[in-house]
Amino acid sequence: MTLSEFDLIGKYFRNAFKNGPDVRCGIGDDAAVVSVPQGMHLALSMDTLVAGVHFPSTTSPQDIGYKSLAVNLSDMAAMGAEPRWATLSLTMPENDPDWLAGFMEGFSILARQYSLSLIGGDLSRGPLSITIQIHGYLPEGTGMYRHGAKTDDLIYVSGTLGDAGLALGLLEGRCKTEEKYRGYLLNRLNRPAPAIELGMALRNKATSTIDISDGLLADLNHILVASNKGAVINIDDLPMSDAVKQQPEAADMALTSGDDYELCFTVPPGKQTLVENELKKYYQLSCIGEITGTPGMIWRRADGSLYHPKGKAYQHF
Amino acid sequence: MTLSEFDLIGKYFRNAFKNGPDVRCGIGDDAAVVSVPQGMHLALSMDTLVAGVHFPSTTSPQDIGYKSLAVNLSDMAAMGAEPRWATLSLTMPENDPDWLAGFMEGFSILARQYSLSLIGGDLSRGPLSITIQIHGYLPEGTGMYRHGAKTDDLIYVSGTLGDAGLALGLLEGRCKTEEKYRGYLLNRLNRPAPAIELGMALRNKATSTIDISDGLLADLNHILVASNKGAVINIDDLPMSDAVKQQPEAADMALTSGDDYELCFTVPPGKQTLVENELKKYYQLSCIGEITGTPGMIWRRADGSLYHPKGKAYQHF
Repeated sequence: MTLSEFDLIGKYFRNAFKNGPDVRCGIGDDAAVVSVPQGMHLALSMDTLVAGVHFPSTTSPQDIGYKSLAVNLSDMAAMGAEPRWATLSLTMPENDPDWLAGFMEGFSILARQYSLSLIGGDLSRGPLSITIQIHGYLPEGTGMYRHGAKTDDLIYVSGTLGDAGLALGLLEGRCKTEEKYRGYLLNRLNRPAPAIELGMALRNKATSTIDISDGLLADLNHILVASNKGAVINIDDLPMSDAVKQQPEAADMALTSGDDYELCFTVPPGKQTLVENELKKYYQLSCIGEITGTPGMIWRRADGSLYHPKGKAYQHF
Repeated sequence: MTLSEFDLIGKYFRNAFKNGPDVRCGIGDDAAVVSVPQGMHLALSMDTLVAGVHFPSTTSPQDIGYKSLAVNLSDMAAMGAEPRWATLSLTMPENDPDWLAGFMEGFSILARQYSLSLIGGDLSRGPLSITIQIHGYLPEGTGMYRHGAKTDDLIYVSGTLGDAGLALGLLEGRCKTEEKYRGYLLNRLNRPAPAIELGMALRNKATSTIDISDGLLADLNHILVASNKGAVINIDDLPMSDAVKQQPEAADMALTSGDDYELCFTVPPGKQTLVENELKKYYQLSCIGEITGTPGMIWRRADGSLYHPKGKAYQHF
């Protein structure tokens, strides 16, 4: 039996997650209705993943479901926001309940982890594409924006860089790695862990934050342009996994490949001790350089010599 | 010269609309940040339009831009909400600034009309598809939901029914009409007018509302199922334009064809005078039947005979 759109919504979406008291009306009306507590602003971000563009067409529905939500949660992390609700528009070439069940399995892992509810969306026929909008609370006055970096701020990144890019290179036959790294790398590509807790911990500490979706070079550049600043990056301090370190162009891979969904953020010198002492207990954080007053980026080696990245940042067109 | 995603966003989106003071951060960061005034709930709704599915591939970018926003605004109308901000995810097969300029021209007509600002979104490469999420204010306690219809409530619809369906029939060669109606009908298909003001005027008057996107039969049925009620519909009271009236299966067209984006709503008998005297001055409204305690729909002619629609409601799959 073929299930209609309304059957599918009823089966896979409507009661999949528990709504909090701030959801006055969830799935099933012309619009969802929510209330935002006093003292809170609402952060919201929308991202689309298109099959064959943002993920290889061979990706499992579980991984697609997970990653679609992960990339959106990562935007909440970059604002220091606490995620609350998501809306989901799913465009599928055919009515395929098995695919949908797999997709929701992956989606649910993160949704449950962050007590997120699914409050609305759309289901359409068409080429496979997933659009999610995520909504989160941000206590008034705690927002971390791209334009806040100041001269002499330290530049940090979380985790390691280049793993997802290397994984994509493996899938596309452009890169090679030792077999023992394969599982780790594919997991980094397909199941990125959004840095929600770190983002919230950075409130009142970081002057600017961004999540690394298009590659450090491109994303740090957004901070620099928005803040009208420059940066000196210490290439030898870029955090890399053993798998990436072994690559012929490791530093370039760390600088320019996307999809890692780590955070890049800036910290005033007066708060560095706080970050080093408090946050490094819980998170892998690396200081990779500092903000300068002169726009532009300079990359240098530990020996003082200059470095010039060869790669280009991911272009959406 | 080819413009990058960021150039396109800067040129067509970032400063296209004025943000109100409730927008703390608009386009250009990891997430938008907004504040919702005390006493207001937030209504939000997401709709996707896929080329070749929701509109013919020959539709002009201006009409696509207009309609994408119109169908979302229509959901605000159905909640009685006042639209405030939109987010837009646009997936396009190629970087085409001319198409984008046309799209934004159509989008802007409605955005300006409702002082709506565009606060975020995404731009991707892929098969043409537009996802918009619309956000509006709803004074606490005024929401009109699908589940509120009561026995003996009167059923109203706004405007005329079947025009957009007939227009699509013309484009697809399934229907014919006199040449003099063509422009009117295509306008009804491509430039539906969302019933925002009517929706807000219905607060505290209507017990349930829905916008007619899938056809009256399907959409009224959502109200009936959610309210656990039935309805008697007076077929001869269905409002139709002269163009639709001339069609061989006029009543069926009015009942089952979608895309009109009129409102269907229910009014308690005690408030009918208010609706007839106050609202009919400003809006074309027709009372087409009444809610009954027994689930199911009955259609009858003015002479008392029963009628059985032949058409089927629009199926999303």
